[in-house]
Amino acid sequence: MSAPRWLSPAEQRAWRTQLALHKLLMHRLDRELQEFSLTVNDYEILVNLSESPERRMRMSDLADATIQSRSRLSHQISRMEAKGLVMREDCHDDRRGTFAVLTDEGWETIQRVAPFHVAGVREHFVDRLTDDQLETIEAAYAPIVEQLKKLR
Amino acid sequence: MSAPRWLSPAEQRAWRTQLALHKLLMHRLDRELQEFSLTVNDYEILVNLSESPERRMRMSDLADATIQSRSRLSHQISRMEAKGLVMREDCHDDRRGTFAVLTDEGWETIQRVAPFHVAGVREHFVDRLTDDQLETIEAAYAPIVEQLKKLR
Repeated sequence: MSAPRWLSPAEQRAWRTQLALHKLLMHRLDRELQEFSLTVNDYEILVNLSESPERRMRMSDLADATIQSRSRLSHQISRMEAKGLVMREDCHDDRRGTFAVLTDEGWETIQRVAPFHVAGVREHFVDRLTDDQLETIEAAYAPIVEQLKKLR
Repeated sequence: MSAPRWLSPAEQRAWRTQLALHKLLMHRLDRELQEFSLTVNDYEILVNLSESPERRMRMSDLADATIQSRSRLSHQISRMEAKGLVMREDCHDDRRGTFAVLTDEGWETIQRVAPFHVAGVREHFVDRLTDDQLETIEAAYAPIVEQLKKLR
């Protein structure tokens, strides 16, 4: 390996700020969702299912959409099943595995919680950034996201 | 609660891109660190300890520095102790709890792994951004980070 190209101070600041932002933000949004006995991860599952036809997704598609392993998702879905928010359903007409389906309670939960969660996302992130900053962040990160998806 | 201010399409894109970037990046960097039997979380602990006087930190300070709860950190440190990378040490001269201390093996590990990890951070993040983008990200996120730290 050739000599390491260590990060410059400016590069290091940007990298560490990105890491800290994500952790602190998730910590804060988790805290705010605790009031509804949800985590940010629960919320993300509810959003994905609520936006899908018939409020259901294949487990494999849901794992892709939420960027996590099948096994981690499976544990997550079990916890959410225990809370009555989702159900598992086998596909009878094909062999491509199991669906996660939003229950009526899950649907009511996301309707009820969404206004509070979006207020938190605004307060702690979106409303603290200018339109230009939001645009730069998306333009900078979107190609990296596409590239990293190919590497999965 | 007044009518929810839902995110505009541009706001939603920026927010979702930020979330996806972080998850995919951590997934990728974890994969690359697997070769050394480390995770991104292990790496972060090693860096913090290696940069501290006498390569040691109070557990409470280490929890703050790595933005996680004392209990989560404690589990993490137990796993790293089992691998021989760190040790716990009681403070004899005060009551302010336990230190985490980098072992010689932990020190050698961070020296050996750092060049590979920084290469990954460059390949998947830093080198894919312009200086202007890096500067905008830091300028945009640093005040949010400061604000969120106060809310912890």
